[in-house]
Amino acid sequence: MHIGMVGLGRMGGNMAERLRRGGHTVVGYDRDPSLSDVSGLQELVERLPAPRAVWVMLPAGEPTRQTVHSLGELLEPGDVVIDGGNSNYRDDQEHGARLAAKGIGFIDCGVSGGVWGLENGYALMVGGEEEHVRRLMPIFETLKPAGEYGFVHAGKVGAGHFVKMVHNGIEYGMMQAFAEGYELIAASGLVKDVPETFRSWKEGTVIRSWLLDLLVRALEDDPGLEGIRGYAQDSGEGRWTVQAAVDHAVPLPVITAALYARFASRQDDSPAMRVVAALRNQFGGHAVES
Amino acid sequence: MHIGMVGLGRMGGNMAERLRRGGHTVVGYDRDPSLSDVSGLQELVERLPAPRAVWVMLPAGEPTRQTVHSLGELLEPGDVVIDGGNSNYRDDQEHGARLAAKGIGFIDCGVSGGVWGLENGYALMVGGEEEHVRRLMPIFETLKPAGEYGFVHAGKVGAGHFVKMVHNGIEYGMMQAFAEGYELIAASGLVKDVPETFRSWKEGTVIRSWLLDLLVRALEDDPGLEGIRGYAQDSGEGRWTVQAAVDHAVPLPVITAALYARFASRQDDSPAMRVVAALRNQFGGHAVES
Amino acid sequence: MHIGMVGLGRMGGNMAERLRRGGHTVVGYDRDPSLSDVSGLQELVERLPAPRAVWVMLPAGEPTRQTVHSLGELLEPGDVVIDGGNSNYRDDQEHGARLAAKGIGFIDCGVSGGVWGLENGYALMVGGEEEHVRRLMPIFETLKPAGEYGFVHAGKVGAGHFVKMVHNGIEYGMMQAFAEGYELIAASGLVKDVPETFRSWKEGTVIRSWLLDLLVRALEDDPGLEGIRGYAQDSGEGRWTVQAAVDHAVPLPVITAALYARFASRQDDSPAMRVVAALRNQFGGHAVES
Amino acid sequence: MHIGMVGLGRMGGNMAERLRRGGHTVVGYDRDPSLSDVSGLQELVERLPAPRAVWVMLPAGEPTRQTVHSLGELLEPGDVVIDGGNSNYRDDQEHGARLAAKGIGFIDCGVSGGVWGLENGYALMVGGEEEHVRRLMPIFETLKPAGEYGFVHAGKVGAGHFVKMVHNGIEYGMMQAFAEGYELIAASGLVKDVPETFRSWKEGTVIRSWLLDLLVRALEDDPGLEGIRGYAQDSGEGRWTVQAAVDHAVPLPVITAALYARFASRQDDSPAMRVVAALRNQFGGHAVES
Repeated sequence: MHIGMVGLGRMGGNMAERLRRGGHTVVGYDRDPSLSDVSGLQELVERLPAPRAVWVMLPAGEPTRQTVHSLGELLEPGDVVIDGGNSNYRDDQEHGARLAAKGIGFIDCGVSGGVWGLENGYALMVGGEEEHVRRLMPIFETLKPAGEYGFVHAGKVGAGHFVKMVHNGIEYGMMQAFAEGYELIAASGLVKDVPETFRSWKEGTVIRSWLLDLLVRALEDDPGLEGIRGYAQDSGEGRWTVQAAVDHAVPLPVITAALYARFASRQDDSPAMRVVAALRNQFGGHAVES
Repeated sequence: MHIGMVGLGRMGGNMAERLRRGGHTVVGYDRDPSLSDVSGLQELVERLPAPRAVWVMLPAGEPTRQTVHSLGELLEPGDVVIDGGNSNYRDDQEHGARLAAKGIGFIDCGVSGGVWGLENGYALMVGGEEEHVRRLMPIFETLKPAGEYGFVHAGKVGAGHFVKMVHNGIEYGMMQAFAEGYELIAASGLVKDVPETFRSWKEGTVIRSWLLDLLVRALEDDPGLEGIRGYAQDSGEGRWTVQAAVDHAVPLPVITAALYARFASRQDDSPAMRVVAALRNQFGGHAVES
Repeated sequence: MHIGMVGLGRMGGNMAERLRRGGHTVVGYDRDPSLSDVSGLQELVERLPAPRAVWVMLPAGEPTRQTVHSLGELLEPGDVVIDGGNSNYRDDQEHGARLAAKGIGFIDCGVSGGVWGLENGYALMVGGEEEHVRRLMPIFETLKPAGEYGFVHAGKVGAGHFVKMVHNGIEYGMMQAFAEGYELIAASGLVKDVPETFRSWKEGTVIRSWLLDLLVRALEDDPGLEGIRGYAQDSGEGRWTVQAAVDHAVPLPVITAALYARFASRQDDSPAMRVVAALRNQFGGHAVES
Repeated sequence: MHIGMVGLGRMGGNMAERLRRGGHTVVGYDRDPSLSDVSGLQELVERLPAPRAVWVMLPAGEPTRQTVHSLGELLEPGDVVIDGGNSNYRDDQEHGARLAAKGIGFIDCGVSGGVWGLENGYALMVGGEEEHVRRLMPIFETLKPAGEYGFVHAGKVGAGHFVKMVHNGIEYGMMQAFAEGYELIAASGLVKDVPETFRSWKEGTVIRSWLLDLLVRALEDDPGLEGIRGYAQDSGEGRWTVQAAVDHAVPLPVITAALYARFASRQDDSPAMRVVAALRNQFGGHAVES
């Protein structure tokens, strides 16, 4: 089928490529003219046959919001917008309501797969009305991995990004579990070949997983991870997972600890620990370092 | 080769069976005469050709300790004892030293695989001297999964169980990450089909893993996990992981949080939270429940 | 000076009483006519001399919001509204801007002191413009404890409730620290008189504090806390503290753990731990409880 | 009464001074001859009238163990040894049993008070037999703060140090709670005078405490804590508290988080977070810092 793709960066560009390989006709727009098929959103809309489908693959927040608003001005009743970025599910609910008021459909689609998706397919987690999701199924079928897994219509608008958000929260927890295990093994001094230990775990263990496979690859490249600093960004979903949990009074000790470990990794010096050091000095005369 | 197997319960029995299928001659001893090939350890030792290998597959702690001590009395220089149970690595170090004084070898072998191991093979994490490990390789080759993974000689005596202990600590963290994600999705009310959501994650996602596969199976059997109480035992390795981390001053926030969630799951009423409720009542006049 | 007090519940009623004892003229309004001096906000405003000061002491969220909006309609330029409830600092910022557009001042005032404040005074944490705060100082002076502490003008509108929110977050962490210590001592079986142990800590220790004093009182009333269930509510500030921390990428492991312990205390059965139990059953054949 | 004091460092020296001011006769021994009244333990024992009391005030572990063993050789039945250091309660149980076999009493005494104890008195938490504790009461009465608090006979040998250990665990949690609150307030940018905010909390708040008083002092000396590095040691009791909790299956999320924050504060670069960074790079192509 025909589809517009807004945002042709690493993710959007690869997805457009996978769609084209799957036989779809993709009209792409990017603010970088060297990547773009059209001069702007208006031309993109004009180039698509009605009822149109436009996939937005932009950074969450303002860039996505502005594009969805603009598409709301340009599209017609019966068209559908898909937000495949990492938007917060509350933004989806707002975007869905805004477009619905104009008769335009809205689907939120959480996408997992990173740099591996072009070849292996992207796991898709979709929220929206049944009729809109059904209409887009040829697109989803092409993007998802072969086989019976990798796609879910999770619920109404917002459910797709909510589920992707939680997926990422789980991912944070799993990554940190491996990370802590690595640090303890390395600190113990008991293990003569740490990379080989992780490598052996790829079969027969309870913890075998794609993340383990990736860690083994990373350790093959750099056995002591010497070339990497212990500094980890977060991309928003982990924070939103914690905030949603707090809203729902759901305790998330592991996922939150993983998020906080990332926050702490980005501090050169912890203001909180300055307080602890200052207090130890006050009551015990313990020396402080300055 | 010939090997003695002490302890023919769920794990030991299946491992003996896998060894026999692999062409080895296993003499098994269990205190349950209906499972046992011999009347006692002495007969077991007599039935094995020297240099002997005896695999101990018993609960950690006193049962393993007593059997290793007894074998130390019965075996001869050049024989090897393998502890395949879930012993603490400090016990291994003591057992290894005690047997070494008599010229008897000692290998600690952490085993992962649970009820699936008979068919799929057991992941093995081994500690001990190179010569002892080399001698037992035919046994390890049969027990491990086919292919290049599932076996590591991690280091000296104790390293095998240390590595298995950390494996289980990682497992605790991963399980709790999935558990927290499940609870948040279920609490959100946004997702119409929770089991299908987890099922979709089996391909293309970052969190795809054997634990996810098992969770999908559990949700297929019981979609709301209605038949299961939120009560989780721990088998020792999680505790030892935390204690080892404290010994090494390694922060393990995720693994520890997972362990504590299990502790808390076993309390009908939390004494700590009685204190919190009492304090809220004292300073704020907040009602307490009794 | 003259002041209106909206909300004459436990907190508002006691604060009005303390103000009257301090020589101020308080016109009180409550939706319960038996507590109220006036029939409604309009009469309250009419009974106050200009420039007026109206203190709102209502539940955070909708009740406070509606009253602030109504006062915005009834008051005149130069009047000041003080929100002494437990509002979120973001609400303050909205209320302050709305009233400022009409020339009406707004002060947010976090109040600590609970049921003890009438006699001991209330700790006040204030946000707002210098001129408004200065005007209200006679009121603050009467409400606060005697002496040099118990009042801070923390910053612009919102800063008062932000600081009070963090105060409560710290309180959560401190309460949980005492609670955990209590549970461990009680579980150890080593200590013959737990209440006496806590009582002894009231002098000479690093942890001496008002919360310890309150815990000692609670243990005097009920030495084993037998009459109290381990079930703890939270009143919002703990959640907001965590959410603010996530917004600012500040790791708050202790305060968050304290909040999550409260969440968990309110669950009869943990969905997350059902997942853990189900997974243990899947891979290890461990029995589940139902 | 007469008492020997072994170890005349900061703590022991001040305690000896407080005892002398209280009218007791103290014979002090220190390996530093310039501090010592005697040439060695033998002379110390000879200088004391029977039944003797010897207070050991040395670093926990080997120094205390060796001295207790030596005193066991030098003292006579009916004498009493008091360990006032920061020993682990399990060491006490071993020391108590060893001395009891020779008819020598043993008391473990957890001491809180730090550099403030000489003037204000030391909080004492004592474990041991009733008869030994009763005999030493004149000493305890002099060391403890004036008034009814600051002393508890918590139970048998070991109970004193156990209780002191938990006291320190609670202290870790409380310090971290203040530390996190400080960091969040500082990060918010909303508060114009952070030290004044903490100072205001000294009266009327729920969190008023000696630790708050100390933090206010520290902020008076250095308002932004600019001269202090966020690096905090731990002295053993926090670790033992966590390990005791794990032994007793008691969840201690707050105290453990406080301990782990100290561990993390001492790492220049976190190996665990190198793993997280490496994994993010593997699956998402996220840049790593090196």
